[in-house]
Amino acid sequence: MKRIGLVMFFVAGLCLAQDSGGYQPATTNVPGAEYPRVDGNSRVQIRVKAPEATKVRVNFWSGPKLDMEKQIDGFWMVTTTPLAPGLHYYMLNVDGAEVSDPNSYSFYGGSKDASGVEVPEMGTTYYLPQNVPHGEVREVWYHSSVTDSWRHVLLYTPPGYDVQSKVRYPVLYLQHGAGEDETGWTRQGRANFILDNLIASGSCRPMIVVMANGYARRAGRPSPDLTGNLPGSPEAMAAMQQMAEAFEDEMTQALIPFVDANFRTIADRNHRAMAGLSMGGMQTFRVTFNHLDLFSYIGGFSGAATAQVLGQEKLDVKTAFNGALADPAAFAKRVHLLWLGVGTEEPARMHEGMERLHKSLDEANIKHVFYESPGTAHEWQTWRRDLKDFAPRLFQEGTPTP
Amino acid sequence: MKRIGLVMFFVAGLCLAQDSGGYQPATTNVPGAEYPRVDGNSRVQIRVKAPEATKVRVNFWSGPKLDMEKQIDGFWMVTTTPLAPGLHYYMLNVDGAEVSDPNSYSFYGGSKDASGVEVPEMGTTYYLPQNVPHGEVREVWYHSSVTDSWRHVLLYTPPGYDVQSKVRYPVLYLQHGAGEDETGWTRQGRANFILDNLIASGSCRPMIVVMANGYARRAGRPSPDLTGNLPGSPEAMAAMQQMAEAFEDEMTQALIPFVDANFRTIADRNHRAMAGLSMGGMQTFRVTFNHLDLFSYIGGFSGAATAQVLGQEKLDVKTAFNGALADPAAFAKRVHLLWLGVGTEEPARMHEGMERLHKSLDEANIKHVFYESPGTAHEWQTWRRDLKDFAPRLFQEGTPTP
Repeated sequence: MKRIGLVMFFVAGLCLAQDSGGYQPATTNVPGAEYPRVDGNSRVQIRVKAPEATKVRVNFWSGPKLDMEKQIDGFWMVTTTPLAPGLHYYMLNVDGAEVSDPNSYSFYGGSKDASGVEVPEMGTTYYLPQNVPHGEVREVWYHSSVTDSWRHVLLYTPPGYDVQSKVRYPVLYLQHGAGEDETGWTRQGRANFILDNLIASGSCRPMIVVMANGYARRAGRPSPDLTGNLPGSPEAMAAMQQMAEAFEDEMTQALIPFVDANFRTIADRNHRAMAGLSMGGMQTFRVTFNHLDLFSYIGGFSGAATAQVLGQEKLDVKTAFNGALADPAAFAKRVHLLWLGVGTEEPARMHEGMERLHKSLDEANIKHVFYESPGTAHEWQTWRRDLKDFAPRLFQEGTPTP
Repeated sequence: MKRIGLVMFFVAGLCLAQDSGGYQPATTNVPGAEYPRVDGNSRVQIRVKAPEATKVRVNFWSGPKLDMEKQIDGFWMVTTTPLAPGLHYYMLNVDGAEVSDPNSYSFYGGSKDASGVEVPEMGTTYYLPQNVPHGEVREVWYHSSVTDSWRHVLLYTPPGYDVQSKVRYPVLYLQHGAGEDETGWTRQGRANFILDNLIASGSCRPMIVVMANGYARRAGRPSPDLTGNLPGSPEAMAAMQQMAEAFEDEMTQALIPFVDANFRTIADRNHRAMAGLSMGGMQTFRVTFNHLDLFSYIGGFSGAATAQVLGQEKLDVKTAFNGALADPAAFAKRVHLLWLGVGTEEPARMHEGMERLHKSLDEANIKHVFYESPGTAHEWQTWRRDLKDFAPRLFQEGTPTP
């Protein structure tokens, strides 16, 4: 704290000299809110006015659960130990009420509009808005005959899409996790800025990114009950499976045809990728391996083939995925990229499961990438890093783009 | 209550015997949340778990402030009297802590990420997603030389924009109020669905709608301090004025040239409109009357010319707006539409101010439209109705669209 107590900070164009212990308002705060704030050691201070409360807590989902301390001015405050960098979901608990902090923007996660606080990663800019051309993030509504409903999808178009009206682009389908929705990859994950920066530096090809809502229900069927964030109980697994089946049809029969008809895509398997996090990783493995005629790039971020990741099973390469892996040479030729990622601090079941899948693939000589995000858990910083490693590997093979 | 005391409810997979009263979960709830819920008489029930709290209140900004009642299960509950239809911002107050309800989606208003509950208007569908073609809502980033920063703008493109690549469109610039941001008109106001429905029924011309962030600060200048929702204190007025000046330059020198360069607009005054609510109405009057070379359609929704609306002054038509009104016949020829709207239940100062402006214009024979929204206050239902009346009147005169 001493070290940076007197450092000058440039914040939104203002030059402030303040003995704040180096704390700065989080970038996830609404304009003008001083708290939450974060110091150079990744410690977060939360402050909330609750003059008549007897107990106030803050619960970070992938972090500490802490009692806050009452101050004489009626505010409650707490300072965390250093947190991992990235976006952390949190909730306030005021005398037993689990509520959101109106000083932070809300992020849909854990099936709630929860609060989030961004902890900067020192020296890291790949997911920050930089002085480079920016793509658009479009809210698009389309009618699905599979679900017989209008569906909302977010679609990133790369810089120049509107003015270079003859150019066609490859497409990455990118899925959120359970308890999140189609807004997660841009709001929490900052996928648009990650792509902007990778494209600007020439590290990745300009592409369209489609972020769909991963919950689907066939027309006339009841909604499956799905709660919780980490894939868990047998009930949650069964509900996910049921949804995954509906989502597979929805995606292949409704969404992909809609995107190819309405956007300037290169509509073939050499220019179509899919990846997803957690539940979205499972959906990705299901959809892509059942439709290798549609996809040639596959990414599982902290989630992939269900039984191998979450069960105790070793992958049976002869039978798994309709036998797609039975001939490693043929598979490597057909699938240009099979990519797996996991955070080193994820729950053992997830970490070991992804590692078991990776080892099974290695033993079977199945070409793939296995990436471990150091020091991060089942959280957005892991998935931002995944995307940063994954996207530059896309669309480097197959038919060249015109 | 007796009438339905034994009705069975399915709540998140649990079967509960509970008094329903015909209540339905609000459409602003996160998926699966049973509360808030609304009945056919526009009464809202809020329920929150707070087992250790001693006092829980709910504060509707344009509605009642109510004590909630503790139930034996540790939940607190309240039922309102019938509310006006539309979106109501609200906050929970748990033992003095003003917090957001994680069961509702959050909406940026009152300089907070606040909770909102939607009360349906019986028989009204113009702002609901219907089975009609839908436009897109695009998040766009552009660099402004006026503010020397990247700015975030939302842009509605009408149905067919992506595929009818030769068609050019007129543009409406549509501004939010103080304490809100560029997300307000689509998230709270549902402007995209209002336009979709008007376009589908042939009531309004397909147009691009640009929703900018109304806070601007010239490069190198400090941010003005702006709080509160209704235009109020002299300090707030001065801050708004300062921002309005910067916003005027930002809009005319950066935003409009960017939009015309990057989207298929018809870039002339006959095909450019501006409207805004509250603070946005004042900005509209400032920008359009200072730049009648750029605009020919003008809308003030619960906000317009500052002194005439909020002061006690009668409009001096000879000198007001650089003398633009001095010759009524010339003005009517030059400005195709001057539109004013206000809710009948708005605070007296706002209602009377808009009425005074309207009467001044009438007495001076200045052609204009004055619309009163029955039964609504300084709230989004007023502004949805305003847009529904305003948009069909746009781009009916001047050079026909090719």
